[in-house]
Amino acid sequence: MVVTGSIDKVREVIREARKKGKIVGFVPTMGALHEGHLSLIKAARRDSSFVVVSIFVNPVQFGLKEDYRSYPRNFKKDIELVKKEKIDLLFYPPAKAIYPDGFSTYISETCLSRALCGKSRTGHFIGVCTVVAKLFNIIEPDIAYFGQKDYQQARIIKKITKDLNFPTKIKVLPIVRERDGLAMSSRNIYLNSKEREVARCLYSAINLAKKLIKKGERNSRKVISKMEELMKSKKRVEIDYIEIVDADELNDLKRIGGRALIALAVYVGKTRLIDNIIVNVK
Amino acid sequence: MVVTGSIDKVREVIREARKKGKIVGFVPTMGALHEGHLSLIKAARRDSSFVVVSIFVNPVQFGLKEDYRSYPRNFKKDIELVKKEKIDLLFYPPAKAIYPDGFSTYISETCLSRALCGKSRTGHFIGVCTVVAKLFNIIEPDIAYFGQKDYQQARIIKKITKDLNFPTKIKVLPIVRERDGLAMSSRNIYLNSKEREVARCLYSAINLAKKLIKKGERNSRKVISKMEELMKSKKRVEIDYIEIVDADELNDLKRIGGRALIALAVYVGKTRLIDNIIVNVK
Repeated sequence: MVVTGSIDKVREVIREARKKGKIVGFVPTMGALHEGHLSLIKAARRDSSFVVVSIFVNPVQFGLKEDYRSYPRNFKKDIELVKKEKIDLLFYPPAKAIYPDGFSTYISETCLSRALCGKSRTGHFIGVCTVVAKLFNIIEPDIAYFGQKDYQQARIIKKITKDLNFPTKIKVLPIVRERDGLAMSSRNIYLNSKEREVARCLYSAINLAKKLIKKGERNSRKVISKMEELMKSKKRVEIDYIEIVDADELNDLKRIGGRALIALAVYVGKTRLIDNIIVNVK
Repeated sequence: MVVTGSIDKVREVIREARKKGKIVGFVPTMGALHEGHLSLIKAARRDSSFVVVSIFVNPVQFGLKEDYRSYPRNFKKDIELVKKEKIDLLFYPPAKAIYPDGFSTYISETCLSRALCGKSRTGHFIGVCTVVAKLFNIIEPDIAYFGQKDYQQARIIKKITKDLNFPTKIKVLPIVRERDGLAMSSRNIYLNSKEREVARCLYSAINLAKKLIKKGERNSRKVISKMEELMKSKKRVEIDYIEIVDADELNDLKRIGGRALIALAVYVGKTRLIDNIIVNVK
């Protein structure tokens, strides 16, 4: 396994792999790796013959009042984890290598980015799109892997990949959950034990929605109300949004039908957690 | 020479060329080819072993009141010209192939784009950056060629190539001029004979500036005044801007020094013409 923070070194190592006819699979991460990330790496290992993981906490995707500084970083543990997964290349650049002084180019997706998290996290997806485009140009992967937990992010990355003609295939893998259903997230370590207990309510709310829809409920407003009710019974929980949208265009659905995404963002204490599920309704 | 409007076909042909170890040189154009374009193609022929030219009048870089519809198009003549230059691949996509319905991703360079033409052509460089990024992702060239006539454009493309880590080298080639000094431009055919005569004043103004600086003038305001004076003596001429900026960052120079860019945009009748020169002052 090659470990480097140098863009030139990455290009060199990948050029050599290409010469040998390798298929390059890429898993971009912000580190603090958990089972969710590992499921992406395992998928890359299955599909491709040269697996690249990047660890980069991308300052540009954090808002001014968000947790860029305190975002969990644990390189020592991360490097052990990726070693076990037998990846080929770990790219771990310093911020200055990715955003040198005078950096001035940004990528905006202007439709899907307005929905859901885009409303409360201004500029977040500009940061995501910009760094992903940069990483794609550095690594030139055949396939790149993203988690469904950040459904909107994955959807937007698929869109910019298509719109900008990146020659990379995007694969989105299922949410990996803790035993009690909480979606795995690097941010879960922010939670104290009481908050951790309460945090199960995101998954409970999703399951409640699923049940209601299975029973025949098609009115989004009613489903969302029930989910809100469940949340509001919990202490330390503040809803950012609960929405039901069509899973492709992320437009609000008044009536649930087709491929629908139920997505929510919730503060538990000071920690913002997200979760989602896709339901297929005839 | 392969001629195609299909992105898939382009990828296929270039993949084959790559397998043979070819170096890919790329000249993006909007067609209505003239000696300026041909000088770029000849440079590509010299440097690389597989030359790609694209012809695409990019709707996104035209303002609402600009000349997208009337922009000169002459595919028959263009194809004869590129045949003579022995290029390998001509990519001639329809607008729908580049901007399918629902297209929603844009690239902005936020510093250099504010200067010069960016002031009068809102959104122009977003259109340029977006289409160039797309073409780079489709063709994946080793080297791409741009003309110095569009100095700001070339400067911005160099910047986004660096910022977004495109693995492409950008080469900028000198302005090619008509006998009387008018910079070659596809838009020159808009000019009627009187306007064509008057249009020489752009080059005259540039030469005047060069002479004044050679004589020791370092005050930008004074140089610009003399250029304006020369312009204002001409009928049918309206100045959009005359500016002296540092050639790297495009910031206004009060005092001329270092690598300075003298750039101007002028309406001759209804036709907007641009020209520029770089002076090196110790």
